[in-house]
Amino acid sequence: MPPLHRLAPPLRCLRLANSTFQRSAFPRPTPPAFFRAHQPRGQHTEAAPTTSASSVDHSPQSQPDRPQSKITYTADSYPNLKRDSRFKEVTADDVAFFREVLGSDNAIIDGVTKDASDDLEAFNSDWMKKYRGQCKVVLKPDTTEQVSRILKYCNENLLPVNPQGGNTGLVGGSVPVFDEVVLNLSRMNSIHSFDEVSGILVADAGVILQAADDHVAEKGYIFPLDLGAKGSCQIGGNVATNAGGLRLLRYGSMHGNILGLEAVLPDGTIVDDLCTLRKNNTGYDLKQLFIGGEGSIGIITKISILCPQRSPAVNVAYFGLSSYAKVQQAFREAKIQLSEILSAFELMDSQSQALYARASGARLPLESPHPFYCLIETSGSNTDHDSEKLTTFLEHVMGEEIVADGVVADNESQLQSLWACREGISEASQHFGGVYKYDLSIPLPDLYSLVEECRERFQSNGLMSDTDESKPVFDVVGYGHMGDSNLHLNVAVRRYEKEVEKALEPWVYEWVAQRKGSISAEHGLGLAKKEFIQYSRSETMVGLMKQLKKVYDPNGIMNPYKYI
Amino acid sequence: MPPLHRLAPPLRCLRLANSTFQRSAFPRPTPPAFFRAHQPRGQHTEAAPTTSASSVDHSPQSQPDRPQSKITYTADSYPNLKRDSRFKEVTADDVAFFREVLGSDNAIIDGVTKDASDDLEAFNSDWMKKYRGQCKVVLKPDTTEQVSRILKYCNENLLPVNPQGGNTGLVGGSVPVFDEVVLNLSRMNSIHSFDEVSGILVADAGVILQAADDHVAEKGYIFPLDLGAKGSCQIGGNVATNAGGLRLLRYGSMHGNILGLEAVLPDGTIVDDLCTLRKNNTGYDLKQLFIGGEGSIGIITKISILCPQRSPAVNVAYFGLSSYAKVQQAFREAKIQLSEILSAFELMDSQSQALYARASGARLPLESPHPFYCLIETSGSNTDHDSEKLTTFLEHVMGEEIVADGVVADNESQLQSLWACREGISEASQHFGGVYKYDLSIPLPDLYSLVEECRERFQSNGLMSDTDESKPVFDVVGYGHMGDSNLHLNVAVRRYEKEVEKALEPWVYEWVAQRKGSISAEHGLGLAKKEFIQYSRSETMVGLMKQLKKVYDPNGIMNPYKYI
Repeated sequence: MPPLHRLAPPLRCLRLANSTFQRSAFPRPTPPAFFRAHQPRGQHTEAAPTTSASSVDHSPQSQPDRPQSKITYTADSYPNLKRDSRFKEVTADDVAFFREVLGSDNAIIDGVTKDASDDLEAFNSDWMKKYRGQCKVVLKPDTTEQVSRILKYCNENLLPVNPQGGNTGLVGGSVPVFDEVVLNLSRMNSIHSFDEVSGILVADAGVILQAADDHVAEKGYIFPLDLGAKGSCQIGGNVATNAGGLRLLRYGSMHGNILGLEAVLPDGTIVDDLCTLRKNNTGYDLKQLFIGGEGSIGIITKISILCPQRSPAVNVAYFGLSSYAKVQQAFREAKIQLSEILSAFELMDSQSQALYARASGARLPLESPHPFYCLIETSGSNTDHDSEKLTTFLEHVMGEEIVADGVVADNESQLQSLWACREGISEASQHFGGVYKYDLSIPLPDLYSLVEECRERFQSNGLMSDTDESKPVFDVVGYGHMGDSNLHLNVAVRRYEKEVEKALEPWVYEWVAQRKGSISAEHGLGLAKKEFIQYSRSETMVGLMKQLKKVYDPNGIMNPYKYI
Repeated sequence: MPPLHRLAPPLRCLRLANSTFQRSAFPRPTPPAFFRAHQPRGQHTEAAPTTSASSVDHSPQSQPDRPQSKITYTADSYPNLKRDSRFKEVTADDVAFFREVLGSDNAIIDGVTKDASDDLEAFNSDWMKKYRGQCKVVLKPDTTEQVSRILKYCNENLLPVNPQGGNTGLVGGSVPVFDEVVLNLSRMNSIHSFDEVSGILVADAGVILQAADDHVAEKGYIFPLDLGAKGSCQIGGNVATNAGGLRLLRYGSMHGNILGLEAVLPDGTIVDDLCTLRKNNTGYDLKQLFIGGEGSIGIITKISILCPQRSPAVNVAYFGLSSYAKVQQAFREAKIQLSEILSAFELMDSQSQALYARASGARLPLESPHPFYCLIETSGSNTDHDSEKLTTFLEHVMGEEIVADGVVADNESQLQSLWACREGISEASQHFGGVYKYDLSIPLPDLYSLVEECRERFQSNGLMSDTDESKPVFDVVGYGHMGDSNLHLNVAVRRYEKEVEKALEPWVYEWVAQRKGSISAEHGLGLAKKEFIQYSRSETMVGLMKQLKKVYDPNGIMNPYKYI
């Protein structure tokens, strides 16, 4: 790890920082090689999502390096789930119909009339190798009309359908549970238009996020979403799961950025709402139901999205703080002083950084330890202005003793090293055996208390020790997107044990529910969290959601066994 | 009007501008007194919306200075509208029930058991004095439970309900058509919480927009919506109508900023979705249906909204351009160079500025005329940085001959004068008799062609002259929120004539429909545009909307005769 320019106590170091602050524009880095070795290219750096401790295989084998044929069938790991007996099984006649609709042998994987187990496997299992379905047929339409004809047919014949984008989801939503027909969007991957004046992109649902971002980058724009899986995930899937990611603090959510979409309902109706306007107050904004709907009421086939201007100047600072109260103060000050250029404000506790250092062997940027660390990123149109704002901010927070110590990246390599301290935590958490992970939204004032209480819980029940190998829990760490109130709570364990699971669930969900938080901040419900929605939504809300599902999908063929 | 600092050809003047660029922070100005004289305090500066030329009284008497008792009943100006015979009329027993629920004489205006005509009038007619209903009872609940009991009762007894916020709408959505019960939210006006770290405000629907903005301003935040009616309109109504306004370019729409809401369905169900989290991926985002739903499926009672940091530095520039192609170039350059600090990019054509000058007697900021003018506003956290960016931008666009001439405001009075050139157009358009107004979204490349084609239309049909008093049309002007693709097309007339109406409608709507624009960019549908939705929405979409209306409001009691 290259040495970093250090900001030791208040003003002296900051003058130094100022004098070396001019640097070229940096792209956002990917984590260093060490941390990417176990991950497929372009897939999530945040690893496995929360799942029910009681119902799912938590064994360390269920990791990405496990061969697909060894993955437990979801039907076995969720024994309470039964195949819906109303659903028909796919027959040779059905396959003949699909083949006629698709008009190409490349567009169908047929495991009904012949053996296609090997070809089907990649569509049946998720990248975490945690979920495994048993579908016999994969359809890859390349027009909306084909999607419409297929869905209409499946609806009329009670054939369940599993919509699938890049299959990078973290909650088991993108792979079948039993023998659902997989409708994969990968062949619908054209970019239809990009208006260089307005920044509005119209593209097929199957376009890879990275390709969409590259396309608009050439014109000086940025896709308003970024996440670890960008090399594999598809924009239709991003919209269907309301993906949050790294740019939400700055550019907001899909609900604000998506201007229009085209989708197909189970009965084949094409919802033609592909508006390319920022303002259109003519009736209910129905497209919003598909954003975060996880393919449960229809399949998104095209999207229209507003892309913001790309920022040529990017700066990153990393600093230590003495308490969570100071973290909140620093966030407030960052919002005031960095305001329009603030693009990330990430929180890491000391335990998470120690775990990262221990697992990766990396040297931490600050010499002495601090209870909390924050990473700040600014993105703006003028490097000098942004550097000046960041320096002024750092002078202020160090002068006021809000921040105890800090460093700023002087070059791209340092910038990457600082980001690695944040992005490496996820892998580091699994380094000593396994990890229980929770992706939660909690109102900011309470956000960190959960980590403290969780740690106290394991300290008092005698299950945790960082030296005693007989204890299952190694450490409890907290980190996340402070700017979005999004906490990642990781319980790093030596091995998975029922006692640990019992101490965690439903306690974590109850804790979050009491503070009106969310049990799934950005990963969605899928199969993993279907059973826990009541912790984030009232009975009334769940009832209204079920009512809506019934309106659009009365036969329940869309992505069954999941969501709601 | 005070003299403005002029930027004559390229660089010389800009250096001058640079040297006088340091100035204090300005609040956004209200239009000068001249243009506010005919308007109630704090109400819209954009005047009457488009209405059907064939079905609505366009006589000049239907203006704000017309006594309420003289306003034509909506039932008379829309003779095709008939009262729904399924609906019951309010009886003394109903009033007794409402009185029991509300528990206060201040909370009910009872025109059923006694004469209350004078008290009812303000709730029956809109501020433009264009629509007038005949309701006999106004209810002002102060708790969500009261709203719930009232709606449940009305639903069971088939009593139609007209939800009403500040009654500042422009499409007749906020006043009854016949004898609907008016449910006015003005007594639900508490601010419940504001988190100074996250910037999240939770407040009752009846809070006045100005009060909400003042509340968060004290903490350094800004309400992400601003519009002329801010002194009267209520935030619940803003959300229900998905108000766009002046800050949309910078802060985006309600669909992105509203984090949660509480609403009551016609059957009394309380939709408790008052989330205070930026991320919550646990099921359908049902709240989105109420945003822009115009009270047609339920009544919003509370909102939770994310407020951005308030910018202490505001700059305004006004410049002339030789073509619409140059306007688009200038917008593109502004996005690149001003990027994160750009907060307004407004377009005005030469006709609109000439009309403004002629009507107001004001001197225009630039000496020689230009085919187009733009107003740019920047808002940021650092005055020096913003001024430098603006200067660099102006040097560039003048050096490249994208912009022909320009001025920047040196003080608050100049800033107000520049904004008045944009905000004064609406009143000026009515100055010579009357005006046909259209609030449209059109994709940017085509946006101005409509104005040109409309002008050619009136030139070729012989209905337009700026000197010949026998011609009904005085001028056709175009202006609007370029940054949002939102065009205001105003046809200034000496008098309302059927021939003019026939030349305009449905031609304008067809023109917009052909370019996939919107016939209502930000004003909504209400009563005025209910009949024209098919120009912006397909039959499929309208069908899906009607289906949804039926799901939530099977008896059709919510805001009947309007929307969908």
